[in-house]
Amino acid sequence: MSSLKDNDLSLEGIKLRLRDFAEARDWDQFHSPKNLSMALSAEVAEIVEHFQWLTEEQSKNLPKDKLAEVETELADTLIYLIRLADKLDIDLIKAAQNKIEINEQKYPVNKAKGNAKKYTELDNE
Amino acid sequence: MSSLKDNDLSLEGIKLRLRDFAEARDWDQFHSPKNLSMALSAEVAEIVEHFQWLTEEQSKNLPKDKLAEVETELADTLIYLIRLADKLDIDLIKAAQNKIEINEQKYPVNKAKGNAKKYTELDNE
Amino acid sequence: MSSLKDNDLSLEGIKLRLRDFAEARDWDQFHSPKNLSMALSAEVAEIVEHFQWLTEEQSKNLPKDKLAEVETELADTLIYLIRLADKLDIDLIKAAQNKIEINEQKYPVNKAKGNAKKYTELDNE
Amino acid sequence: MSSLKDNDLSLEGIKLRLRDFAEARDWDQFHSPKNLSMALSAEVAEIVEHFQWLTEEQSKNLPKDKLAEVETELADTLIYLIRLADKLDIDLIKAAQNKIEINEQKYPVNKAKGNAKKYTELDNE
Repeated sequence: MSSLKDNDLSLEGIKLRLRDFAEARDWDQFHSPKNLSMALSAEVAEIVEHFQWLTEEQSKNLPKDKLAEVETELADTLIYLIRLADKLDIDLIKAAQNKIEINEQKYPVNKAKGNAKKYTELDNE
Repeated sequence: MSSLKDNDLSLEGIKLRLRDFAEARDWDQFHSPKNLSMALSAEVAEIVEHFQWLTEEQSKNLPKDKLAEVETELADTLIYLIRLADKLDIDLIKAAQNKIEINEQKYPVNKAKGNAKKYTELDNE
Repeated sequence: MSSLKDNDLSLEGIKLRLRDFAEARDWDQFHSPKNLSMALSAEVAEIVEHFQWLTEEQSKNLPKDKLAEVETELADTLIYLIRLADKLDIDLIKAAQNKIEINEQKYPVNKAKGNAKKYTELDNE
Repeated sequence: MSSLKDNDLSLEGIKLRLRDFAEARDWDQFHSPKNLSMALSAEVAEIVEHFQWLTEEQSKNLPKDKLAEVETELADTLIYLIRLADKLDIDLIKAAQNKIEINEQKYPVNKAKGNAKKYTELDNE
């Protein structure tokens, strides 16, 4: 059992709590990175499903009940993402910080600023 | 500009850094929840792509260069997930903690323990 | 070897051609339904990626070079879909016709006609 | 209205039937290529969901009721794929035949045959 309290609010805290959760249920046998990547993609698709027939404007102004549903899907997505990173021994926060640094150099403000076409092209490089 | 330092290692720190990043490039116009959900799903698919022809066993033992590539995809996934949550004003950590509590009640240890078939059925409820 | 000619233009013709293709390369070993479902989702994500930063209007008016790229992704998607159906011994055309019949009863014209809100709700039933 | 009968068993027949279906319900307004790509990816994720905790072996031997559910998801996937291709004025069958020709040259039998490692590498080129 983890020594962290249930209300630990960091990513690290959630990682340990999820470890305990899977271990107690003997579910590690199902949590190969391959399987977790599938579960992750299925959860993200449930987010997409909420937005597929909405306009962009509508997606910014979800009614409360819809928003609560989307919140649950985001939670599931984060849970599987943390679990997958744990199984691969990847530090998610550090990885994200590194990637943002790369993006800051890849998309310099003066080249990327405010142009949809440019944005798309840069994005597809 | 955010007052947080670039090396802030919390989810909150990344959220603010991503805000600055998008604002400086005038990219908020593209970051509707609808569009971000699409970008999120495209990133997750790049994770899936790494695992699709591997056995579960192989997915647990990635060679170093593959692992580095997967790490970058996980980073991109977290980045878009944080960005999407920010746009919807959702607290990701709190949402995940709430969901884990629900899961702990939904899958009690004595019912769920160690049975693949049971696991699958419970999972599909 | 299939007796169908390479230019057979039916779904059945493609199915047989893909069988020959995989057999000749000894790739059936990788084509479990599980793996094929992953490959299918990765291909669809490449379609999504083309549209993620476009407005709905822009997505209707792709420049020629973009359209050619999307066409290739649609082809890849159909290829994996046919392959997956073949491995599961599912008749895709018959399955689609059956599903359309179900949809026609599920969404009667008089209830579903022309109302976005209604559409979304019906769709989520 | 299409002049094709409901039991037309070609891809072309389904395309026309889906056109009638959307037109009668005034749903073309929702069927931008952007939106249809999202719906397509959400359907594929439902296929993935069926396989995510199964071994490859299990995925080859679905129980009858599971297989029937997967069949419905494959049908939905084909339906949205046909609809998306129609909106983009793409001939799916021709596109797939062209792509298979390209693949036949890209993966020559003598180089690609029977080697998982080779397969993966070739696939990622």
